[in-house]
Amino acid sequence: MTQKQTLVSGIRPTGDLHLGNYIGAMKEIHRVQKEYEAYFFIVDLHALTTHPKPELIKPRTRDAVRSYLGAGLDPNQATIYAQSSLAAEISELHLYLSMVMPIGELLRCPTFKEKAKQHADHVSYGLVGYPVLMAADMFIHGAHKVPVGADQVVHIEIARDIARKFNSMYGEILTLPNGMVEKEARVPSLGGKGKMSKSLGAKTYISLQDSKETIQNKVKRAYSDPTRTHLSDPGHPTVDGCNVYHLHSYFSNEKVRKNIENGCSAANLGCVRCKQMLSESIIELTEPMQKRALAYSDIDVDDILRKGAKKAQKSAQETIAKVRKAIGLIQL
Amino acid sequence: MTQKQTLVSGIRPTGDLHLGNYIGAMKEIHRVQKEYEAYFFIVDLHALTTHPKPELIKPRTRDAVRSYLGAGLDPNQATIYAQSSLAAEISELHLYLSMVMPIGELLRCPTFKEKAKQHADHVSYGLVGYPVLMAADMFIHGAHKVPVGADQVVHIEIARDIARKFNSMYGEILTLPNGMVEKEARVPSLGGKGKMSKSLGAKTYISLQDSKETIQNKVKRAYSDPTRTHLSDPGHPTVDGCNVYHLHSYFSNEKVRKNIENGCSAANLGCVRCKQMLSESIIELTEPMQKRALAYSDIDVDDILRKGAKKAQKSAQETIAKVRKAIGLIQL
Repeated sequence: MTQKQTLVSGIRPTGDLHLGNYIGAMKEIHRVQKEYEAYFFIVDLHALTTHPKPELIKPRTRDAVRSYLGAGLDPNQATIYAQSSLAAEISELHLYLSMVMPIGELLRCPTFKEKAKQHADHVSYGLVGYPVLMAADMFIHGAHKVPVGADQVVHIEIARDIARKFNSMYGEILTLPNGMVEKEARVPSLGGKGKMSKSLGAKTYISLQDSKETIQNKVKRAYSDPTRTHLSDPGHPTVDGCNVYHLHSYFSNEKVRKNIENGCSAANLGCVRCKQMLSESIIELTEPMQKRALAYSDIDVDDILRKGAKKAQKSAQETIAKVRKAIGLIQL
Repeated sequence: MTQKQTLVSGIRPTGDLHLGNYIGAMKEIHRVQKEYEAYFFIVDLHALTTHPKPELIKPRTRDAVRSYLGAGLDPNQATIYAQSSLAAEISELHLYLSMVMPIGELLRCPTFKEKAKQHADHVSYGLVGYPVLMAADMFIHGAHKVPVGADQVVHIEIARDIARKFNSMYGEILTLPNGMVEKEARVPSLGGKGKMSKSLGAKTYISLQDSKETIQNKVKRAYSDPTRTHLSDPGHPTVDGCNVYHLHSYFSNEKVRKNIENGCSAANLGCVRCKQMLSESIIELTEPMQKRALAYSDIDVDDILRKGAKKAQKSAQETIAKVRKAIGLIQL
């Protein structure tokens, strides 16, 4: 029997995700948690780099878990925990890694430069070490695979580099992770410009929490094919030809898409109906997710996190024991 | 009853200390451990910045403990532990502190600049964070006092700065430490130039481990008053006038010093005899220290470290619990 490879995946502590996040990071959950020994964790320690209000951390952590449970994350298949449940182990590993990671490479890292610009008034030592903490997240369970966005591939490279340096000093202790780059999902903004993002305003994205009515209203106002002004004009039902069709390509099934392609090209399916059909497809996705998510009380979520923490701590402590021994620290 | 203030003091993991180290850091131990709730710890984690060979860490840690026990550190009065016994707690606190400490201030810190020059081929992220880890060492027990050399006062300032920043965000959690600057002990080199230091070669310093014969031989060759070439020339028995007298000022009692002052000025006490007297004074100090140190086996030392670790962990875990709560991390 071949053993499953290990996968770790960090989740930002926010329940407020949109359709772009779903396609980018959540859609694959069903497959991933079956194929891998998977650890999903809420990155509540990473989030400290931006100093969230203490009273917000707990509810945001729970909301993030709930969103992922809604999207199909299964606590019986994957290990789900809050990063802070491994604070001792991850911080300790992070400290050891910090001794082998050159500061220069961290200061030159493009994701650091980007964030340093955003928080120019307060660039903390911890912000510089973000990739080192990420590396600790990966090594602590000996991860083989780590799903990342294209902009975070550099963090996988840094982690591999740290592992090589550490192993060359102390022996083959750390597993070199491989990035599993998420499909470059460019779910378009409802506004027609760029990809869906919260930064463009509430009307341009659909939150996974949006009600049926909100979704219908937002889609109704979505930017569509600008060359089609009358029903009698034939439209351009392609990814490049029409923003609404582009959205259909992510959220509607083949049968619906075929209907639209035929009807729109032949000028007998109007934009109003086409948008209704998009709303229906989206609601078909979000409504069951919302129902599943809401079925979990705070107590349920904490229970899941507690069980996950127990399992994750066992794995983490095994790694730490190996690392301490390799470094040669006194065992009492 | 007024409660004792808390003092923490880090000890480098090396047993190979010299007379300059004794006067600078160890002479005050007797007083300090009585007056304060004192924590003495071997900085085996800090030492990782220079990547010591794994097989050297344990013996060096034990040697350091033994040297301090020899110098009078009393495990029944002070808490003695290896820093790595608090690796989880200190690393975790270090991580939280790293989120509030600006990287710019650390890169400008003079002790960092100095060390970065020494290790120009490998300036690690951990080396930059040295003062943050030191701050964690202080905060973990709520230290009021920290003995430091004059060159390390800057680290106390950084720690106070971090505590202020952290407390302004999360409430009055961390105690602001005060430096207890060690008397600027400039025990002179036997070579006559500068202060005693290992960097000037084995003949210029007296190790606390040196045998009686080695001490006698080294002192015999010590640089003395260059203006006194014949016994019949009167000497200059002052701190500035004669290197050997300068050494007497640290290691000989008043009676011996008076004898020398009178005999040397009157040109009826020669340098040979004066140096013998210095050897005697030094051996009177080092011999009992060596005997006390050697009375502790590795098992004894580990026992002391184990007991100290237990007490220190209790104190550290109380701090961590307070810090986690203040930050708002989820408690499961």
